[in-house]
Amino acid sequence: MADRPADGPADGFSELIGIEHLDAPEGEARARVEVGDHLRQPYGIVHGGVYASLAETITSRGTWLAVRDEGQLAMGQSNQTTFLRAITEGHIHAHAVARHRGRTSWVWDVDVTDDEGRTCALVRMTIAVRAPR
Amino acid sequence: MADRPADGPADGFSELIGIEHLDAPEGEARARVEVGDHLRQPYGIVHGGVYASLAETITSRGTWLAVRDEGQLAMGQSNQTTFLRAITEGHIHAHAVARHRGRTSWVWDVDVTDDEGRTCALVRMTIAVRAPR
Amino acid sequence: MADRPADGPADGFSELIGIEHLDAPEGEARARVEVGDHLRQPYGIVHGGVYASLAETITSRGTWLAVRDEGQLAMGQSNQTTFLRAITEGHIHAHAVARHRGRTSWVWDVDVTDDEGRTCALVRMTIAVRAPR
Amino acid sequence: MADRPADGPADGFSELIGIEHLDAPEGEARARVEVGDHLRQPYGIVHGGVYASLAETITSRGTWLAVRDEGQLAMGQSNQTTFLRAITEGHIHAHAVARHRGRTSWVWDVDVTDDEGRTCALVRMTIAVRAPR
Repeated sequence: MADRPADGPADGFSELIGIEHLDAPEGEARARVEVGDHLRQPYGIVHGGVYASLAETITSRGTWLAVRDEGQLAMGQSNQTTFLRAITEGHIHAHAVARHRGRTSWVWDVDVTDDEGRTCALVRMTIAVRAPR
Repeated sequence: MADRPADGPADGFSELIGIEHLDAPEGEARARVEVGDHLRQPYGIVHGGVYASLAETITSRGTWLAVRDEGQLAMGQSNQTTFLRAITEGHIHAHAVARHRGRTSWVWDVDVTDDEGRTCALVRMTIAVRAPR
Repeated sequence: MADRPADGPADGFSELIGIEHLDAPEGEARARVEVGDHLRQPYGIVHGGVYASLAETITSRGTWLAVRDEGQLAMGQSNQTTFLRAITEGHIHAHAVARHRGRTSWVWDVDVTDDEGRTCALVRMTIAVRAPR
Repeated sequence: MADRPADGPADGFSELIGIEHLDAPEGEARARVEVGDHLRQPYGIVHGGVYASLAETITSRGTWLAVRDEGQLAMGQSNQTTFLRAITEGHIHAHAVARHRGRTSWVWDVDVTDDEGRTCALVRMTIAVRAPR
């Protein structure tokens, strides 16, 4: 996979969740996840950690795609997820927009929606950009 | 499982991650996860979403254990995770302390540490407490 | 002032800062502050607390304007401010959009910009909506 | 004032609020504010922005006191304030503890209490540490 850090292991956690990356213009990121029992919490709704994880995956990847040619690394620094509405079936859709592209950090806003387009979670991600040590 | 909401499906996502609940006094929660490839992101470190998910699982559960006898539900309202240090192997340890137990929300602080006891992430979780509709 | 809670004292802190409320459509809020030495921190830039306070004032007020006719109160529950760029002079502009209007809480996104329209801070505010006790 | 950045203007906003710095060991910070009408919002309680501003002042200052000898600057990067209980009179007390002291950022937890020692707000501050450009 061309956009995986060289020599790194597979993207295990994102594959475990079932994150499907979708096309998006530069400075944005999109992905989708099909809801299944493996993503549910005891009440039968999607576990909040899935939204946080989905947002982190696509914004880390989106930042990394933009900075890898300069030899930089991109890693999550903070994840602020606000839960608004439960998802019980269908798909989880995430759309991320880079709000700030700084020398040492990027800030993204991620909207998480259900199949009816209702906003179910809002995530603000800060991704640290660093030179490998 | 006595402390699972009646008729609810299994706690799929927490089991997928491999969260092992540990004993803790009232108002606290503890759990542990063994690191494996299923939790890694492309750089080979534990995916940030794992910390967020782990914190959410134990604080939702900790709140629910305290309010279920009043017939209340406990659900994540916001998850603020700050990443401090990568974990690459061994275990992820989480220790949560309830900082506020309100009528409509609980606020928890969660410290995530590695096997050497180093703080790797800090999570502030707000759990909404609601009557079933 | 018609839109002040009856019998309440003046809006002291917002007046101390110098917040000037501007017209905005339903579900949005706008305000402006003129930069002066009273808002600076020791490096000579606007203190980060000013952005947080400005966002809180306009989103609390925006929520309250919408729920007061039902006899509800609106109060800040959490304020997540991310600082992107310093402001040293001119005006601070804030534009808030309600992203969620729930029965017990509203969630707002606030963009803070300078006179050149550059984004200087992003604020996510959660405002609790409660009946008076 | 020995601990003010050289040539900087006065700490206008903190003085406007009336922040009184108190002694604290290395890696901690303490301050106090006397409640007055200048800090109130329309319901007569202390404006939430005051807690956010107070936390930001003492953690920026605490970081700066520790890094200034290396010629570094300390500036707020994010402020996450959770409001738990209103304060209407007396004093606002803030106690900050540094949870992480990194090369490029410090993370602090701040507890805000009233005169009875009740926790009224929790703040997680991330302070960026940078070399002057």
